[in-house]
Amino acid sequence: MTAGTAVHDTRSRLLDVALTLFSEHGIEGTSMQMIADELGVTKAALYYHFKSKDEITEAVALPALHELDQILDDARTKRSRGAQIEHALGGFVDLIVRKRTLIRLFNSDPGLQRLVNRTLQAPKDEDLRTKLRKVFAGAGPSLADAILVHVMSAGLAMAGGAPEFAAIDDDTLRQHLLDLGRRLLGRPRR
Amino acid sequence: MTAGTAVHDTRSRLLDVALTLFSEHGIEGTSMQMIADELGVTKAALYYHFKSKDEITEAVALPALHELDQILDDARTKRSRGAQIEHALGGFVDLIVRKRTLIRLFNSDPGLQRLVNRTLQAPKDEDLRTKLRKVFAGAGPSLADAILVHVMSAGLAMAGGAPEFAAIDDDTLRQHLLDLGRRLLGRPRR
Repeated sequence: MTAGTAVHDTRSRLLDVALTLFSEHGIEGTSMQMIADELGVTKAALYYHFKSKDEITEAVALPALHELDQILDDARTKRSRGAQIEHALGGFVDLIVRKRTLIRLFNSDPGLQRLVNRTLQAPKDEDLRTKLRKVFAGAGPSLADAILVHVMSAGLAMAGGAPEFAAIDDDTLRQHLLDLGRRLLGRPRR
Repeated sequence: MTAGTAVHDTRSRLLDVALTLFSEHGIEGTSMQMIADELGVTKAALYYHFKSKDEITEAVALPALHELDQILDDARTKRSRGAQIEHALGGFVDLIVRKRTLIRLFNSDPGLQRLVNRTLQAPKDEDLRTKLRKVFAGAGPSLADAILVHVMSAGLAMAGGAPEFAAIDDDTLRQHLLDLGRRLLGRPRR
């Protein structure tokens, strides 16, 4: 193992531990000391990786947004509108199901919401919300389609992250969310 | 005007002013002094009506929840399942559209979310979330139906309160949300 992968492993374990603590105690209720204790390292060692809890929060949340961005980019390479929508919906739902703990946290933490909203609106090449809308509803969506995409994406994410559905296994939850997404989008049921 | 109605009017104006300030500055960013200033009264006069900002927040939010509770109770008096669902959906969507500012605030403020969630789960006779689910999906809903009701209610509320749709007039927004609710519930379009 090179020094590089060791640092990478520590960082990734750190983010896992942080997400678990965040989901148990809330982001506000989790201190750098608690993260260090859980990792079995000193606070100084923790600060070697991240300057602040905000930086950790960002590092916990951003990969999921980048993944969504990638899913939407991939979807746009598909030839037909139908294939684009199927790819985007499948990827979006799969991401929700896999990242349920993070989404549950997002639904209840204002700091994380602000961070995600900044990122969703960040005009890199194109913000994530606009991209989501274009993939699902085309380049110049009607108002009806814009509202549809909002209801669908918010509804699926809120339900996927809801505490009352936390015990449902991934495959079952994925299938139900996919069915509802298809129904809203007027896609045939599989 | 009796003293009773004068107090009632002051209280209701106070709540209007508080909601406006909350939506402009956030609940955290709004002080009792700001509310008093905007009302043109002293802080002492404000404290005559409410002991704390938390009490004001609660008084701003609770009427909407009671209204929803009433809509669901009314829906259950209808004879057919179809009529129950139509009444509940129409009332729910109408409430979202009329209370958009409050819902936008709810979607972004953790204190208000905690308050509403406590109320949603409060076991008076039956909590509001359970009631919502029963009216839309029947007494013993399948998992699919439970997820459907969650996607629908969260999706419609999130979209209805979304800043990007704030400029849409009430009738247009109401019609779009109704259409999407009907589509999810498998109801005929009107």
